Amino acid sequence: MNRILVLGAGRSASYLINYLAEESLKYQWEMTVADINLEAIQEKIKGFSHIKALVLGINNLNKTKKAISEADIAISLLPPKLHFRIAEICLETQTHLLTASYLTPEMKALHQKVKQRGLLFLNEMGLDPGIDHMSAMQVLDTIRKKGGKILAFRSYTGGLVAPESDDNPWHYKITWNPRNVVLAGQGGTAKFIENDKYKFIPYYQIFQRIKPITMKGLGQLEGYANRDSLKYCTAYKLQDVPTIFRGTLRNKGFCQAWNILVQLGLTDDSFEITNMQEYTYRDFTNSFLFYHPTTPLEKKLEEFTGLSFESEVLQKIKWLGLLEENKIPFQKATPAQILQDLLQKKWKLNAEDKDMIVMQHQIEYELEGKKIEEKMDLIVKGEGLSQTAMAKTVGLPLGVYTKHLLLGNNFPKGVQIPIKEDIYTPVLKELITFGISFH
Amino acid sequence: MNRILVLGAGRSASYLINYLAEESLKYQWEMTVADINLEAIQEKIKGFSHIKALVLGINNLNKTKKAISEADIAISLLPPKLHFRIAEICLETQTHLLTASYLTPEMKALHQKVKQRGLLFLNEMGLDPGIDHMSAMQVLDTIRKKGGKILAFRSYTGGLVAPESDDNPWHYKITWNPRNVVLAGQGGTAKFIENDKYKFIPYYQIFQRIKPITMKGLGQLEGYANRDSLKYCTAYKLQDVPTIFRGTLRNKGFCQAWNILVQLGLTDDSFEITNMQEYTYRDFTNSFLFYHPTTPLEKKLEEFTGLSFESEVLQKIKWLGLLEENKIPFQKATPAQILQDLLQKKWKLNAEDKDMIVMQHQIEYELEGKKIEEKMDLIVKGEGLSQTAMAKTVGLPLGVYTKHLLLGNNFPKGVQIPIKEDIYTPVLKELITFGISFH
Repeated sequence: MNRILVLGAGRSASYLINYLAEESLKYQWEMTVADINLEAIQEKIKGFSHIKALVLGINNLNKTKKAISEADIAISLLPPKLHFRIAEICLETQTHLLTASYLTPEMKALHQKVKQRGLLFLNEMGLDPGIDHMSAMQVLDTIRKKGGKILAFRSYTGGLVAPESDDNPWHYKITWNPRNVVLAGQGGTAKFIENDKYKFIPYYQIFQRIKPITMKGLGQLEGYANRDSLKYCTAYKLQDVPTIFRGTLRNKGFCQAWNILVQLGLTDDSFEITNMQEYTYRDFTNSFLFYHPTTPLEKKLEEFTGLSFESEVLQKIKWLGLLEENKIPFQKATPAQILQDLLQKKWKLNAEDKDMIVMQHQIEYELEGKKIEEKMDLIVKGEGLSQTAMAKTVGLPLGVYTKHLLLGNNFPKGVQIPIKEDIYTPVLKELITFGISFH
Repeated sequence: MNRILVLGAGRSASYLINYLAEESLKYQWEMTVADINLEAIQEKIKGFSHIKALVLGINNLNKTKKAISEADIAISLLPPKLHFRIAEICLETQTHLLTASYLTPEMKALHQKVKQRGLLFLNEMGLDPGIDHMSAMQVLDTIRKKGGKILAFRSYTGGLVAPESDDNPWHYKITWNPRNVVLAGQGGTAKFIENDKYKFIPYYQIFQRIKPITMKGLGQLEGYANRDSLKYCTAYKLQDVPTIFRGTLRNKGFCQAWNILVQLGLTDDSFEITNMQEYTYRDFTNSFLFYHPTTPLEKKLEEFTGLSFESEVLQKIKWLGLLEENKIPFQKATPAQILQDLLQKKWKLNAEDKDMIVMQHQIEYELEGKKIEEKMDLIVKGEGLSQTAMAKTVGLPLGVYTKHLLLGNNFPKGVQIPIKEDIYTPVLKELITFGISFH
């Protein structure tokens, strides 16, 4: 095996391509980067003449099949909904597949076929999911080997802006898929277990049920419940553990203000507003508040929230431009699309801005009759827009494990996520050399 | 034309079958009532020996086709999702079709074909939608003919329990599809226009944005926004009218208490709770509240709502049994299913209970320089479980218009809803003789 195909050359591909480019030079592997946009490829492979650029639209089935058939390992950085199509081709062409996306039921259903062909389709091999799984399993397995009994496992992750680049009242910038930023929490009712009791939080309560989280060097952050934590009971072998929680981290004050956008309905992606010729941001916000012939929008927001317009929270809403008289640049769009477009301008990560990945695991366990609480923190800062911490922490796990495979090491067969020791041990070890390590 | 087929003999069919049975005796029409349940048919056609009973499962395509091909008019009281299948058969067999359900886009798409064959597929011919359209169009058309300019149209409908049968703190009993009671408001963001401004209300705000509605003889009720009022702009020829609103009526205090169930997440139908062997109603309610080792559920509800547990609102929640220690009778179910099962017991309409339909149109218009406000109220009471006001107001419009068709009167061709004068005039006129009239 010596042929790598990277599908997708977007912003999140930079570290991965860089890492594999250098390794492939060293080991004389063949490497191809495919994307629909030639410029994006050229920017990423600049300085590496041994890498092939391939302009490829995924809808061109024959060309895609040919490209995958000429690789031993395909790494898909394409939008998640396309992974399954790639997986079906990989099965046909006997190609291993790695992605950083959540394992879907349809992908999972391929397990037996993938196994029979001696292939590995490794999903959730990025940051969150990815590094969270690997680091969690490493500490949990270590405690279990010592004879410890796990009592609680809580894990929080966030993609934030580094303090030195934080210059807005939300203390947030968009460092990943902006659509997911707007739709955060809409993937389904959040589920977890607390002291053996099921807990469920509907979307519209998520941002008002937050927990304070302290991280050394960053002070106080806040965490909100992220999706279905129960799903991890089996994967993490935590079936008998009374408390399991996964959360997302934001800077202090973010959730209370974001909750107002949610409560108003501005994050709604279920219908389109039409005929927006004369529609301003002020009209947009007003559409979600009660009608009154003379009450100004500012006053309505005060009544809706029970807060003063001069409060930090409502000043955050104002800062976004949601009360301004300028026209919305769409003819028709969902509220979520209008909000996303605005946030992409207001929360823009500038070229010199540094993003920051934060992760915290909280583990409670019993060992030799004693209760022990452990906290593990990960902080990774980016180096500007073209080398974000997000791209680093999503791309390097994929890259490192690709190297591991190409060097002929053993690997589990079938459809997998990185929770096995022979996956996480070598990867976490090498990630440390890139400054990705827990304290 | 002299052959009628009624598909479905559930509770809502009683008045319709009774009415058409008597008319068919008078005019010597052939009438068949089909249902999967023979007993249900027999109960409905008791005393009418000229009516044929047909045991029919809709999945038996050949038998269904045969039954429809032997009718000139089919009336479908089946679940809404089955109407389209029936419509396709009706096209093939040259049979007119009447339903009381919302017109769907796929049904609408049949318009040209239905028209070409000289058929009528009349939808929304029940109460709400149905009587609301007809009565609205009648008054709006009358005002327009006088030269009036419509300024605002608001219309509220509710299926309630009659005051004489009202014996629970919610002042509500289930008089129609219980699943729809639990999922009320989840059909999509509510939309309307107020003074030329778009207004949108997300599901989780609907029950906190209520309007007081006064009805003669009933005192104060409350109305909440119902689905997409904008849809009716074109149908009602209200494109230039600055205020259009459709709402649902409940007794005073209902919405505030229901809102607590919504905010907790108990109406969530998007996921199943599993492994409910030992799960009680108290556990269920607790699952949606924050964890605390010693705080009792009552105290948590006080914190969640900001209300005293002795308040009317929280006493309503308690009355439902949501704090009791008895086991939930399911192994797995969605929160909405658990709640529905409980409500069907607590809000049961007993055999002797009378239900009640209430409707109010509020119309503002300008005529000869004067602004005029008009209110029209409809109150229809049922006569017990087997002859509900709901069955009467849903069934009679279908029945009366079926007679109108069979008597050879003109009818509009194609896929329609009852907004044309030659539909609403004869129907509303005859409904008055059954006590269905506005004041």
